[in-house]
Amino acid sequence: MEFDGYLGTDERDWEATADGTLRVAIVGLGWWSRERVLPALANLENCTATVGVSGSSAKRERAVADWPSVEHGLSYDEFAAGEAVDAYDAVYVCTPNALHLPHVETAAEFGKAVLCEKPMEASVERAERLVAACEDVPLMVGYRMQTDRAARSVRQLVREGVVGDPVTVHGHMSQPIAEMFDDPSHWRLDPDLAGPGASVTDLGVYPINTSRFVLDADPEAVTAATWSGGGEWFERVPDERAGFQLAFPDGVTALCSVSQNAYKTAEFRVVGTAGEIRMRPGFFGAQENELFLSTPAGETSVTYEPADQMRELFCFFADRVLGEKAIPADGEHGLVDMRVVEAVYDAAEDGTRHQF
Amino acid sequence: MEFDGYLGTDERDWEATADGTLRVAIVGLGWWSRERVLPALANLENCTATVGVSGSSAKRERAVADWPSVEHGLSYDEFAAGEAVDAYDAVYVCTPNALHLPHVETAAEFGKAVLCEKPMEASVERAERLVAACEDVPLMVGYRMQTDRAARSVRQLVREGVVGDPVTVHGHMSQPIAEMFDDPSHWRLDPDLAGPGASVTDLGVYPINTSRFVLDADPEAVTAATWSGGGEWFERVPDERAGFQLAFPDGVTALCSVSQNAYKTAEFRVVGTAGEIRMRPGFFGAQENELFLSTPAGETSVTYEPADQMRELFCFFADRVLGEKAIPADGEHGLVDMRVVEAVYDAAEDGTRHQF
Repeated sequence: MEFDGYLGTDERDWEATADGTLRVAIVGLGWWSRERVLPALANLENCTATVGVSGSSAKRERAVADWPSVEHGLSYDEFAAGEAVDAYDAVYVCTPNALHLPHVETAAEFGKAVLCEKPMEASVERAERLVAACEDVPLMVGYRMQTDRAARSVRQLVREGVVGDPVTVHGHMSQPIAEMFDDPSHWRLDPDLAGPGASVTDLGVYPINTSRFVLDADPEAVTAATWSGGGEWFERVPDERAGFQLAFPDGVTALCSVSQNAYKTAEFRVVGTAGEIRMRPGFFGAQENELFLSTPAGETSVTYEPADQMRELFCFFADRVLGEKAIPADGEHGLVDMRVVEAVYDAAEDGTRHQF
Repeated sequence: MEFDGYLGTDERDWEATADGTLRVAIVGLGWWSRERVLPALANLENCTATVGVSGSSAKRERAVADWPSVEHGLSYDEFAAGEAVDAYDAVYVCTPNALHLPHVETAAEFGKAVLCEKPMEASVERAERLVAACEDVPLMVGYRMQTDRAARSVRQLVREGVVGDPVTVHGHMSQPIAEMFDDPSHWRLDPDLAGPGASVTDLGVYPINTSRFVLDADPEAVTAATWSGGGEWFERVPDERAGFQLAFPDGVTALCSVSQNAYKTAEFRVVGTAGEIRMRPGFFGAQENELFLSTPAGETSVTYEPADQMRELFCFFADRVLGEKAIPADGEHGLVDMRVVEAVYDAAEDGTRHQF
């Protein structure tokens, strides 16, 4: 089979066309910003990090010392007070979920474009306030799968009907969080900072949003179950593990599972009336990504080299803002995920199907 | 990695030790019996088909003509009347689901061992009567995955803790039934003959029972959704497609999907705390079966040559009956599946979680 147009390339299927360079303030200098974002931005022409914001003086000083483009290291108070406000055009918010809102409000007050990590906030209500705050500035939610080459190929294959009408999606993402962080007080396991749980909020958004992206549709209903076995890492959250089923229009079902306490693996699979697509591992950035396509004509696969997903995400964001182009993953788009996440917890709690 | 003890062989991990040959009456001579069962039995030493029972004189005459071991072709009335009753020791029931009960009752009255296709019957109530009828004769339900070499390897890997504690199971099975049979009046699409639906009853039992077999546990609760798009093939059943989520003990979730109107594909996957096992396609007999094992030590896979699943099933059944050994997939075991299938339809209908 020849499906090069869909999956036989590592090249982008979109082009950054806007002139200029977007200067970004990085708000929150945790490991993700330090290890994934700042290195990615150092390799971009249309986007650069000029400001680092952190509650830790050591972290912000280090950001200025390590990255030539970063000229200012600000505390959160300094950021809120407008210090160095002319040094950046946009704000990337990568703090714990429950702290997104005030930083986004600050950015919007200063007229800055916002790239906000997902999930947008710790509750639907706070996410709605976040969206409202950005009424007059561009807001994009950081769904890195939407600019991932393999995920875009999956969407393209589905769109073009290569696997017929989509029938069923399976999505899974799990990792052993206790091996990734120092101690159980980590914010992703703290409902006050992460939202209602640990696995659906942090990992569930990958199968949820990728299903929406690939199917080009939003869920109509959800059923779910969550489980925590206790132990000090998971005693504060209901979802050491979670499984949930999303009903999309036209009878398409997405069956998703996530866990913060399982083997690190992920897969996204679409079965249609005329074929099957599998992406492995998909949701984990910075590693090889395999895409398998099976139709009555035979099977083919392609291996995507480890992609710098954050580079792609920021390049796309910068191009959208600089070119004043429409933003697909905008606030309203992100709110749908927030409502789905909330419904997953509610449906797990009361055992009923939640309709949207 | 070296996991030869689990998956590096096509050899059985059990042994047929009983003496003698079990003579079987094949009740129902549809395509499954003709193409999958009679050829399989021709290759066995401990089991042989001596009688063929069918409502079609052409089919039963053909069975006698084509297979030297088949000495008698009986109508259903002749079978019920005890004709040639000394020519067989056991009965294999492979009629439409809703017709299993009377044939099993006949077999039990004659003191014959029973191998009954799954699902056992069209309703829980009839299946319970079926089990009660077999109080004094051996009864086995025909779960061919339980004697499938790859599925047994999956179970062994889970049992030995090679992937840690199981966390999540994904199971999928789909096929385009309209391409497999002549017309929409086929019995699998007729609730009067098949039971409450077409996909969960016929295909759903594969992920349900294989999950039970591999996890060595029974579900405690189920949520589900079904969908039919109409069209003459699926206007009588609710489940052209179905998705359901089974809650097993200790927070293990099985997310399953089935469809009689989708691309032919199947997969069974177990994610544990310390690894992942995938079996593809697993549920379809007579084709290559791949098993993938992934742990922190690396990835390995093995390809099982196309297995004659019905040969293995009958060999196991014959050995159990001839040796008067315990039967794992007995009536009570089969009843659990029947209750799960019924709960899937009920949960899909009312949108609530059904507890067992």
